[in-house]
Order: sequence, then C-alpha cells, then structure tokens
Amino acid sequence: MKIQLALDRLSIQNAIALGEEVREYVDWIEVGTSLIKEYGMESVRALKNAFPEKKIVADMKTIDNSNYEFELCFKAGADVATVMGVAPSITIANCLEVAATYNKEVMIDLLQVNEQQFKEISTFTKAIFCQHLSKDLQESASEISLGNPLYKNEELTYAVAGGISADSFSTILVMKPEVVIIGSAITQSANPKSAAKFFYDMARKKGDEA
Amino acid sequence: MKIQLALDRLSIQNAIALGEEVREYVDWIEVGTSLIKEYGMESVRALKNAFPEKKIVADMKTIDNSNYEFELCFKAGADVATVMGVAPSITIANCLEVAATYNKEVMIDLLQVNEQQFKEISTFTKAIFCQHLSKDLQESASEISLGNPLYKNEELTYAVAGGISADSFSTILVMKPEVVIIGSAITQSANPKSAAKFFYDMARKKGDEA
Repeated sequence: MKIQLALDRLSIQNAIALGEEVREYVDWIEVGTSLIKEYGMESVRALKNAFPEKKIVADMKTIDNSNYEFELCFKAGADVATVMGVAPSITIANCLEVAATYNKEVMIDLLQVNEQQFKEISTFTKAIFCQHLSKDLQESASEISLGNPLYKNEELTYAVAGGISADSFSTILVMKPEVVIIGSAITQSANPKSAAKFFYDMARKKGDEA
Repeated sequence: MKIQLALDRLSIQNAIALGEEVREYVDWIEVGTSLIKEYGMESVRALKNAFPEKKIVADMKTIDNSNYEFELCFKAGADVATVMGVAPSITIANCLEVAATYNKEVMIDLLQVNEQQFKEISTFTKAIFCQHLSKDLQESASEISLGNPLYKNEELTYAVAGGISADSFSTILVMKPEVVIIGSAITQSANPKSAAKFFYDMARKKGDEA
C-alpha cells in the first residue's frame, strides 16, 4: 500500500517545502488540480525536478482533449495522470494509449461515476481506479462516507481519496487500496512529518497483514 | 447572438496575436482549458490584459474545489467561468455563489450530462448552459451531431460548442443559442479574420431575424 501526498491550494514553493519535510514518509507525490490550474505545467516540472525519485501524479482531471493534455503533463515529468471516469469512453481510451506510449500510468477518478458507467469503464483494467469523495462534498454537510464504495470489482487496482484522516484511515483499509491519497491531514497538520509518518507506518503495517 | 472565440492548444503569445487579428469580429474570448492547464492563471491575466473590452471566459471545467478555482480565475480577470454539469450539485451551487459575489457569470458545460442530471441542474437558471460536443468525440468516428440537443428548456440561456464550422453554423441556429463558441474554424483557418467575420455577420443577421 502506497501513500500519495496530495499537494493542493499551495504555492509551488510551499508545495516543494512540504514535500521535502515529509519526503521519507510518502511514496507518490500528487500535483493537485489547484496547482495545475494556478501555475500550469510549471508546477509539474518543478515537483518532478524537486522529487525525481518519487512517482509524480498530475491531477489533470482530464475530461476532453485527452491526447493534448496527457502529452502535456507526461512531457512535463508526470509519471501518472488522472482522467475523469465520467468522461466519454474515447477520452479514457486515448489517455491509456498516450500513457502506454510514454510508459506512464493512468488513474481514473470515479467522482460522480454511476454503476452503469463503472461497468463500462472497468474494462480499462490497466488503470488505477480512484474512489474519490470530492472536496466540495466533504465541506458540505454531507452524510456520504468513504470506505464504503458503491461498486467493487476485485480485479481492479484502487486508490482512495478525499478527506482521509488519522481517524478514518482504518475504515479505508477494508477497501485494500493500492494507493491511499492524503492531503490536508498531512499538509494542514501542525506537524506534517509526524502526520505523514503515522500514515506511512499504518500503510506498511496493514500492507504486511493483508 | 454572440460569438465566443475559443483559444486552445496555443502559446499565450499566439493566442493574443490571434485575438488581435479577429478582435472586431468576436464578442467573447475564451481562455481554453488547454491554455489554463499549460500556463495556469497567467493565461487568463494575459488575455484579460490584452482584451480589456471583451468578456473573458475561463474554461476551468471545474468539477471540484469550486470556491478555490472560481476565486482563482475571477481574481485573474475572468468574467465568465465554466463548471461541469456532471459535477456534484453543491459544486455548481458554489460556483454560482462565488460568481454572484464577484458579479461574474457561470457557464455550465453539459458534456456527458444525462436527462436526469439536466433536470436537476436546470434549476440553476442564472447560468448559461453550454451544449458541448467534446473534442475527443469530434476526432473519433462519431455519428453524433450538434444542433440537435437532447434536452431543451426554453427558459434557460444556451451556448453551443464543439467543432462548429461554416457548414454546420446554420444548423446551430435552430437552437437559438445566446453564445456560439468557435475554435478551430477561426484559429486554424488560413484567414482567421475573414472566418471570424463570416460567423460574426451570420450571428448578427440571424440574431436580427429571430
């Protein structure tokens, strides 16, 4: 089980500083959509340059213009890029094709994907499927809980994202995700390093038990 | 009827040069998603700075993190910003709230929106609803045709986008859109100025007839 640090709502400089602080306790580093839309591909280049040994995930949230967007971020240094599961199938297929050409990976964001759509896109077995509780739903008075995915296909590889905290981490583990994506529970912590170490150690421990 | 020039897959410099060439024949100027993801908010700032008299549309394609993303682009100078219709309702509601605060507008991109979702989001009557054929669907061997929207609610304001050409322009008009979004039919034309003039004149003429 890998820990993916999601860097959002930060300057590139602060994102790098945070990444350096928790470097030994995270596996993958995500350039959040907010960084990409604020600073463009410079954010991906800067993070890859600062962390050449990490997998850099560009949270592109592509929903159209797939070839162009995926080439853009892979050329900038991304190792993994995200596409929306609600995108047209051709868009997701294109993303996987570009990724294969660059020897990179695709993460499909399951935000708002319904059961029928999930069935259709679960044919893209080479992708990582990200169960995702959106920031906006977290911040609203929502009753939705993570760790209880609507759809499960044991043959697929999963990531989980969205407001995961020290408290909710154990409920996430029942999903046996390959990747657990943690943002503010590390970046907004008074002590990011010890927060990252907590998740990292938990992931290693539970990974051994599984 | 307004002509919105969509600037995509261009450097900021080339986008400005193109905008200057067709300035008198376009009403709104869209900073395409590809520019935003490649150059960040600098693209919005640069276009607003170059075209202060035009409405600048930031094609953010927001699907989460609504408050942050919409504040980002309005602060950068956007007059209109886009949110995906497939986003959670709370996301769209937030976008409209931020837009109201900044006295700006919201365009809801109907890409992949189904009938049930359309019914739900058509309560957001202050938004502009964009019937959108995606680039990826245009480029695939798709039979889908624009100008024949699945859902229509006469009380809403519409934009139309996606591969609109001189040939297909008249079929678009039956939808009586408020905004017609033209990209490559102008930007990839051998003579962008005369292409823009064609659409501009057609929009004026048909607008008068309606």
